[in-house]
Amino acid sequence: MHRRTFARTTLAGIGGLVVGTPRWVRQAQPVTCNGPRLLKRLRTLATFGRNDRGGISRVAYSDADLAARHWARQRMTDAGLDVHIDLAGNLVGRRIGTDDTLPPLTLGSHIDSVPEGGNFDGQVGSMGAIEVAHTLHERGIPTRHPLEVLIFQNEEGGKTGSRALIGEVEPAELDIVTASGYTIRDGIARLGGDPTRLADAVRLPPSGGPPTIAGFLELHIEQGAVLDTDGIAIGVVEGIVGIKRWNVTVTGMANHAGTTPMDRRHDALLSAGRFIDAVNRVVREHTGSQVATVGRIDAEPGAPNVIPGRVRMSLEIRDLSMDTVDAVFDDIRVAAVAIGASTGTRYAFERFYVSHEAPTAEAFRRAIEAAADRLRLSHRRMPSGAGHDAQSMARLGPVGMVFVPSVLGISHAAAEFTKPGDVVNGANVLLNALVAIDRT
Amino acid sequence: MHRRTFARTTLAGIGGLVVGTPRWVRQAQPVTCNGPRLLKRLRTLATFGRNDRGGISRVAYSDADLAARHWARQRMTDAGLDVHIDLAGNLVGRRIGTDDTLPPLTLGSHIDSVPEGGNFDGQVGSMGAIEVAHTLHERGIPTRHPLEVLIFQNEEGGKTGSRALIGEVEPAELDIVTASGYTIRDGIARLGGDPTRLADAVRLPPSGGPPTIAGFLELHIEQGAVLDTDGIAIGVVEGIVGIKRWNVTVTGMANHAGTTPMDRRHDALLSAGRFIDAVNRVVREHTGSQVATVGRIDAEPGAPNVIPGRVRMSLEIRDLSMDTVDAVFDDIRVAAVAIGASTGTRYAFERFYVSHEAPTAEAFRRAIEAAADRLRLSHRRMPSGAGHDAQSMARLGPVGMVFVPSVLGISHAAAEFTKPGDVVNGANVLLNALVAIDRT
Repeated sequence: MHRRTFARTTLAGIGGLVVGTPRWVRQAQPVTCNGPRLLKRLRTLATFGRNDRGGISRVAYSDADLAARHWARQRMTDAGLDVHIDLAGNLVGRRIGTDDTLPPLTLGSHIDSVPEGGNFDGQVGSMGAIEVAHTLHERGIPTRHPLEVLIFQNEEGGKTGSRALIGEVEPAELDIVTASGYTIRDGIARLGGDPTRLADAVRLPPSGGPPTIAGFLELHIEQGAVLDTDGIAIGVVEGIVGIKRWNVTVTGMANHAGTTPMDRRHDALLSAGRFIDAVNRVVREHTGSQVATVGRIDAEPGAPNVIPGRVRMSLEIRDLSMDTVDAVFDDIRVAAVAIGASTGTRYAFERFYVSHEAPTAEAFRRAIEAAADRLRLSHRRMPSGAGHDAQSMARLGPVGMVFVPSVLGISHAAAEFTKPGDVVNGANVLLNALVAIDRT
Repeated sequence: MHRRTFARTTLAGIGGLVVGTPRWVRQAQPVTCNGPRLLKRLRTLATFGRNDRGGISRVAYSDADLAARHWARQRMTDAGLDVHIDLAGNLVGRRIGTDDTLPPLTLGSHIDSVPEGGNFDGQVGSMGAIEVAHTLHERGIPTRHPLEVLIFQNEEGGKTGSRALIGEVEPAELDIVTASGYTIRDGIARLGGDPTRLADAVRLPPSGGPPTIAGFLELHIEQGAVLDTDGIAIGVVEGIVGIKRWNVTVTGMANHAGTTPMDRRHDALLSAGRFIDAVNRVVREHTGSQVATVGRIDAEPGAPNVIPGRVRMSLEIRDLSMDTVDAVFDDIRVAAVAIGASTGTRYAFERFYVSHEAPTAEAFRRAIEAAADRLRLSHRRMPSGAGHDAQSMARLGPVGMVFVPSVLGISHAAAEFTKPGDVVNGANVLLNALVAIDRT
């Protein structure tokens, strides 16, 4: 692993040109973005919906979101892109390729935020994608594939924009009132889409047909602390994890905490305590990066002087492989039976949520690693524990994701921060990976 | 330990009388109560405040409570007692002793219930005490000490009646609105007491003075399942346990359940799960009958996809010895420090409740055991995990408590039940123990 360094290489440093061959093909050093321009755009973007904590509240479909998207569209035009708004309300900026019979290579992210969110989630990837296009444009670097920069709408409220491209937005979903106060239907219209024609926004290939995109690349902040803690510049995302969630009910017998000896209890909370510990032990016993979490717990009747008779908990398991999720769950269930037997309690599991995994393409991971190597940036493969628009795009073609460090892993809050050098590193990796993928 | 048997001995069975000596002194077999009368009174008492589940809602100071106390007063008069209501609103039935310079031997319990309570808690001991007095009265059996049957008021709402006798009822407490809708002040007045003169209800001896009672005996249902499960007729109460309660706060760090690897978490709920298990382990490692309970738990923020950053729990420890309570707590705290270190979390304990232990007198325990032996009833020493009026009375003189089995340990509910034979056994033990104690 390389030391974490900020690539200082600039266009001026490119040398060794040979007449008759395009400069970008023969460059001895990697091409790099205009870092100051990228960082300035990020700072400007942060003014739309800024809140008094220094973060942003720019929920999808709000006035701040509309204003930011209008501004972003201008930046896409500056980058030489031919911009339109698709039927789903996504911003789409196209650039022709040298072989326009090829499907487009796409890249992008989102600029909407959660309520009281931060200035980096989605925004780094969106401004990074525009900067990549801008750099290619002003350097006159052509690509074989047409390019498409996509700024998706309402990622935070349910990945509406990207899911519309794969036909996953149900009619009933349009009636959901979002944090903006608008329904998704009205929100799509506000952005310039047409909620009555969402079916025409779908880009899935016909059955058996070739992929409709050559690929999708997304730069994003990690939203975890792994890269920051370990001093790694670039995360090479192996995929977006699948998720299953269960309601777990432990039934024992409520009893008087004074008159019931320790060896005659059916203590649902003692059982639950051992269960929570077992979840942690089981998930660690499996090799891999799967995670499992008990995040919610309620004990009944919930008085200091009554032995709990019932406990309800949530259980969530995430992994790149649903087989692993299921294997971990099976082991947890076996442990629960044993804990139930030892405590005189019973377990019931009710699954209430499933989100399928979306692996990235191995060729794209390698292209990202090669780009990082050329830029002398340290990198590590890792899962994305959080969901992203790339998850939807994986249904259209191969995807790749580049992570940059989140300081202390903080996200969805005003304190969300990624260092300027890391932002620029991420855009440079995105640029070089894209160029390499385009050639293959 | 004897087999559990229902003593069928009756007055008619007493023989071997010698002229010139009172019959009760020379009896070859133990004296026994009028079981059918006792059981009939219990059934009648159950009609006051009966609810549609077959239990009672006869909270202190309610109309049902007043009616039941009025009825009970008549039964005390039937038993030959000279009845009055003390300044605290307790029913007091006196009978002279052969040596009226002695302090009285007292016995009794309460007849108020929790909301939606059962027909045995307090009521068995109250009707049992009246039956003991009635039996002594109609047999012409004298006692050296004056006797006092006490039917305390508002046991379930805070042992108000018995605590008034030891000066523990604070003026501010009188303003508490009870489940009846009346304040304690108004409730005392409703019962015929005088809330403005509670200080004069106190029966504590002057500093250094002799006890104001020769003793207090209380018959009560166990409210636990030990006697019922093990088929033991009589519980010889070693004392009423002391109780300490703490609010336990576990502080970790809330984090994204997808992006935070297992080995980088500060999971307050994982820590709490191990803590709950450790509480159980530590309390069992100590020899004795102490109990510890975590009855309440709350995890923040409490979402399935967020690692809990903070957990608040209750911790309660009970034992006959406060030294044991403190020793168990010390060990729990040591375990918490280790669990905190292993999970990256911190523990804080805030004690919010203390109730001091009240041991019974060894002489009284032996008298109860001897009475059970004479009646050929199995018995076992045990702590009382629940609080009782005897706890207050222990401040005035030696106390003893007799437990009878609660079917399945159920209490404070309509399903609360003690078998008729067990009720009569308890009253017979109370009677014989009282007679024996009176002689010593």
